[in-house]
Amino acid sequence: VPNFSEGRDAAKVDAIVAAIRSAPGVTMLDRQMDADHNRSVVTFAASADTVAEAAVRAVEKAAELIDLNHHTGVHPRIGAADVVPFVPVAGVTLADCVRIAECAAAEVWRRARVPVYLYEAAARRPDRVRLENIRRGQFEGLREEVRTDPGRRPDFGSPELHPTAGATVMGARKFLIAYNINLNTADVTIAKRIARTIRTSSGGLPCVKAMGVMLASRNLAQVSMNLTDFEQTPMHRVFEAVRREAERYGVTIAGSEIIGLVPNQAIAMAAEFYLQIENFRSGLILENRIAG
Amino acid sequence: VPNFSEGRDAAKVDAIVAAIRSAPGVTMLDRQMDADHNRSVVTFAASADTVAEAAVRAVEKAAELIDLNHHTGVHPRIGAADVVPFVPVAGVTLADCVRIAECAAAEVWRRARVPVYLYEAAARRPDRVRLENIRRGQFEGLREEVRTDPGRRPDFGSPELHPTAGATVMGARKFLIAYNINLNTADVTIAKRIARTIRTSSGGLPCVKAMGVMLASRNLAQVSMNLTDFEQTPMHRVFEAVRREAERYGVTIAGSEIIGLVPNQAIAMAAEFYLQIENFRSGLILENRIAG
Repeated sequence: VPNFSEGRDAAKVDAIVAAIRSAPGVTMLDRQMDADHNRSVVTFAASADTVAEAAVRAVEKAAELIDLNHHTGVHPRIGAADVVPFVPVAGVTLADCVRIAECAAAEVWRRARVPVYLYEAAARRPDRVRLENIRRGQFEGLREEVRTDPGRRPDFGSPELHPTAGATVMGARKFLIAYNINLNTADVTIAKRIARTIRTSSGGLPCVKAMGVMLASRNLAQVSMNLTDFEQTPMHRVFEAVRREAERYGVTIAGSEIIGLVPNQAIAMAAEFYLQIENFRSGLILENRIAG
Repeated sequence: VPNFSEGRDAAKVDAIVAAIRSAPGVTMLDRQMDADHNRSVVTFAASADTVAEAAVRAVEKAAELIDLNHHTGVHPRIGAADVVPFVPVAGVTLADCVRIAECAAAEVWRRARVPVYLYEAAARRPDRVRLENIRRGQFEGLREEVRTDPGRRPDFGSPELHPTAGATVMGARKFLIAYNINLNTADVTIAKRIARTIRTSSGGLPCVKAMGVMLASRNLAQVSMNLTDFEQTPMHRVFEAVRREAERYGVTIAGSEIIGLVPNQAIAMAAEFYLQIENFRSGLILENRIAG
């Protein structure tokens, strides 16, 4: 799911997407451009053998086309290809993705001369797990700091950032589910209170980010969430937690929405829970047997 | 899902399975032999282009190896390859399966000289929708009746049955889910009453066959079901109906079991229902996007 520092010039993003597609066996899943952030996010799938090559080609093309010295936008960034997380799906493990990120990082430095930081599950130092720490000071600040502070130097490549393409952050993280629950109330304070109760940062469920927002178009309050590890905190546990908290305020659930994509396993876990299936395993699912 | 009239001689079933595997692109999913029924059921998957060829090879091999004149068993049968239903999965429609059954029927007659009846969705006459009507009198009775009663003659091939392999019933039906719900009671009469309330034949839910049985090993009563069209009557509707009926008797659900395989879509429908997902569609599922 690479993020690029170009959200206004569609021709440049097209060229980056074409570079990704030029690698064998790539399936393009999604592509979003944001002009205010001046940033694009491309989602694609490929096998564990070929995904690194596709990502490296994307970073090369971005480094060729994007000059951070002339880049403005509200989103923080340090590189032309700013962040490149590898996400495990369909039998691939997070550990596989860490190895893939390491290979891709070495290739990015070798071929594009862009230095690379490793983050999240691929981080080599605890202070580099979180992206915010690596990106502190952004392109303009970081290129000065690497000259004087060895603690800020990249994991791969020269201490000096690339003069126009900066540096790239690569790594591995689990699949993130963007999941929103709509409440039968126009009172956004209820959604905000529920969000505070269930989210990890306020001592709620693990691996849940949540905030309360107003859906103006429907005059409904919404609990808007990111589930960063659906195996640890599955969708149904979040749904039931929100439902019970809402009950305290005499509010029911109007419905829920999945933003983007959701892995099959997350959906199957909900069915297994609610139908109380005793013998559930992925091999019971016809399509899994055909694919295997 | 072909059914063969041989449930005792594993070497013959092996040879039939090998014939199926000899067709290109076949994935073997399941194989069950029953000595009392003297019958085997083989489940395999193949693409719409190749599944007919695999089925025809199976019927040819069964006709070569099985002589119904020396076949006994408690299960009714008219052919060496007795029943061959084609079941749509993964984007294939029931109408596609009807066409496949028709092609396969013509080939079976041409290559194996076994006449074919069409049943279920492929039936050409309303009295041939149900298998029981076609199989009435079994091999021994039917081979006499076709000589005198034009209404009993096969849809493909000669009126006379094959002297040793009889006739084959081919057709198309939807995926059948075998689904059991265990009750927290040792009183089987409660399971029997619930089965009677929910099953189609007693005026309950459409496309549900149900009976109440005792699970001796766990001392629990069970509602044992076949869901013959999970799109019309999904698993979650059946589960909720059983749960509410059980409440009448003060009984809760201990758990449920899927026997055999279940299509992804049936599982996703349950998650969509319980999580109240407003924007659910199969394209939200990551794996479907990768496969497509």
